[in-house]
Amino acid sequence: MLNLSKRGSIMPASPIRKLVPYAEDAKSRGIKVYHLNIGQPDIKTPEVALNAVRNFDLKTAEYTHSAGIESYRKGLAGYYNNIGINIDFEDIIITTGGSEAIIFAFLTTMNPGDEVIIPEPFYTNYNGFAVHSGVKIVPVTSYIKDGFALPPISQFEKLITPKTKAVLVCNPNNPTGYLYSKKELQQLRDLVLKHNLYLFSDEVYREFCYDGHEHFSVLNLDGLKDNAVLFDSVSKRYSECGVRIGALISRNKKLIDAALKYGQARLSPPLFGQIAAEASLQAGDEYFTEVYDEYLERRNYIIEAVNKIDGVFAPMPKGSFYAILSLPVESAEDFCVWLLKDFSYEGETVMLAPAQGFYSTPDAGKNQARLAYVLKIEDLKHSVKILEEALKVYKN
Amino acid sequence: MLNLSKRGSIMPASPIRKLVPYAEDAKSRGIKVYHLNIGQPDIKTPEVALNAVRNFDLKTAEYTHSAGIESYRKGLAGYYNNIGINIDFEDIIITTGGSEAIIFAFLTTMNPGDEVIIPEPFYTNYNGFAVHSGVKIVPVTSYIKDGFALPPISQFEKLITPKTKAVLVCNPNNPTGYLYSKKELQQLRDLVLKHNLYLFSDEVYREFCYDGHEHFSVLNLDGLKDNAVLFDSVSKRYSECGVRIGALISRNKKLIDAALKYGQARLSPPLFGQIAAEASLQAGDEYFTEVYDEYLERRNYIIEAVNKIDGVFAPMPKGSFYAILSLPVESAEDFCVWLLKDFSYEGETVMLAPAQGFYSTPDAGKNQARLAYVLKIEDLKHSVKILEEALKVYKN
Repeated sequence: MLNLSKRGSIMPASPIRKLVPYAEDAKSRGIKVYHLNIGQPDIKTPEVALNAVRNFDLKTAEYTHSAGIESYRKGLAGYYNNIGINIDFEDIIITTGGSEAIIFAFLTTMNPGDEVIIPEPFYTNYNGFAVHSGVKIVPVTSYIKDGFALPPISQFEKLITPKTKAVLVCNPNNPTGYLYSKKELQQLRDLVLKHNLYLFSDEVYREFCYDGHEHFSVLNLDGLKDNAVLFDSVSKRYSECGVRIGALISRNKKLIDAALKYGQARLSPPLFGQIAAEASLQAGDEYFTEVYDEYLERRNYIIEAVNKIDGVFAPMPKGSFYAILSLPVESAEDFCVWLLKDFSYEGETVMLAPAQGFYSTPDAGKNQARLAYVLKIEDLKHSVKILEEALKVYKN
Repeated sequence: MLNLSKRGSIMPASPIRKLVPYAEDAKSRGIKVYHLNIGQPDIKTPEVALNAVRNFDLKTAEYTHSAGIESYRKGLAGYYNNIGINIDFEDIIITTGGSEAIIFAFLTTMNPGDEVIIPEPFYTNYNGFAVHSGVKIVPVTSYIKDGFALPPISQFEKLITPKTKAVLVCNPNNPTGYLYSKKELQQLRDLVLKHNLYLFSDEVYREFCYDGHEHFSVLNLDGLKDNAVLFDSVSKRYSECGVRIGALISRNKKLIDAALKYGQARLSPPLFGQIAAEASLQAGDEYFTEVYDEYLERRNYIIEAVNKIDGVFAPMPKGSFYAILSLPVESAEDFCVWLLKDFSYEGETVMLAPAQGFYSTPDAGKNQARLAYVLKIEDLKHSVKILEEALKVYKN
């Protein structure tokens, strides 16, 4: 018998994938499904980005520099400098999506078996990157009753072992929408300095902070020159999920040098994606204002609306475009399957992501689901109505 | 002290990278450098591919399916079926370059510490992918005197341990230009069946086989349904290195399912690259004929010319666009550095890749260098003259 490797066998499937056949089946029965389960925004990519790709006038689609096109790295450094994050273009490696930035960071800082502490619920693909790199995610639970605020540092302290090499936060957070405060990040700074750990921060939703809350980057924490590592991506900022352009950023030269060797082995990040991403730097404030206002309106609408449904609670997210709901059901996963398999309201239903997949602790978040407010207000209104009607039926 | 991981520290730099500062310095002194060291062809990308990207008319650059756009996978299956490789589109995962296909295959089939046997000299980035995935490359030496033919199976047998999980060949070969015969591949089939191993084949140079020699794919070996795994890429076939589109192909459903989970974690291969790659399927015979004839002419010219230089020997490559030369010097690396640092002929010099970096065995290939005939005939003529003059000077 020819076997797969252990890491081939244990690689987790996305929790949403389990629901996909049910959604497809519902559609085949003529039912319209509102997808609140995914992170693919319906927002337009900046025209300036698409035009740059359309105007490609070279004869050969060549490799770029393994760290990314130099003019793009310089432009991107300018973007950070403009928002008060002081970095040099040589602190940046352009990666194939934020995904590759995370993989390169895990590989270059952690040995197989090493541990990274991550507040749960967390972005499920971190599990995939952990299996990919053979490291262990140690969850520290954040709670819906606290709006998913950073767990007390004492909870982190309890989890630190000689294998602990890093703490990872996603800020603003997917899936909770929580925005970590400067004070919380300073607590993490003290923790990582005390224990000699890396502090990884996934800040791909940076532009989406609401109610006057300001985003604070780990790169602006004092004393973390070698510890702080930023993961970024243009996927959400410019609605360019398909271009697969991210970045790994750190002032730790040794780390960047090591990661670049991984970058050289895979030769180059995608050429056309970099062309789109570089042009996007010219997108201008009006693009962001329009996108921002759209998300803000959606958030305000949907959070208020779902909280009016009997038994549903969702803390107000301060950032990103996700929210976690607690539902008056025992198993949100069963409920999400039922929504697709057995329910429809006026020929329509809704797809949510069961939140259990975002937790490592068994049974945590069992009655919770994540929604992404990536649909038009009109569609969100239908979705809320469907959810309300569904819960009435489901409870009986 | 905040340390890197072991795999962050041991990641090898490309052997060519060491020479880059010398090449830059030479250029800064006004010396023209002919780059015979690289695999970036000067060949044009098919217009139909560039036009497809230029005509992108959607408003949002969205994620594609994690296994790649379905119409592209179907089109690609058609390409294989046309050349006599019978596969279904569901046997294909579109990857971010051939690089990612290799990483996914290593991760899903081998545990850390497992071994893959590869004939040396081999493509140096395999070392990077091995470090990335924690596996060990066990080299089996092929020799320039044999034209780099497959080493006797008895040599493979000697290297097999309980940790051996796979054999990997690059066919046609980078860096040697060797094309494995059907008979050699059948010997490998018998070997992997006997020892229950995977047979990986990197066939990205498939279109470049000369002198009437036909390419034979591992996917056409009988009895290897579960064992045979193909790595492919559009980088060389259509001169699309920058689009970062490759493929992992196997009829082993378990392997493809496992690799797809790695694909799902990184979400999607590049959208624009897939658009270019899919359109390239329409490139037509005239594109290939033109490209093929160009490479053939270059190969015929340069191999004959270098063999006329006193003390230089290069076996005639049957495929790809690389050749290994043995040089009348003790250390080809020292000579390659010297070419850039201390030599010029009529204001010009040449950059070659020292072949030692393509061997794992210490000191193997020490007097050899790899050249890539990716330049125009006129430039190749200058390069040969420079090499000839340089060797005259260097020997004194």
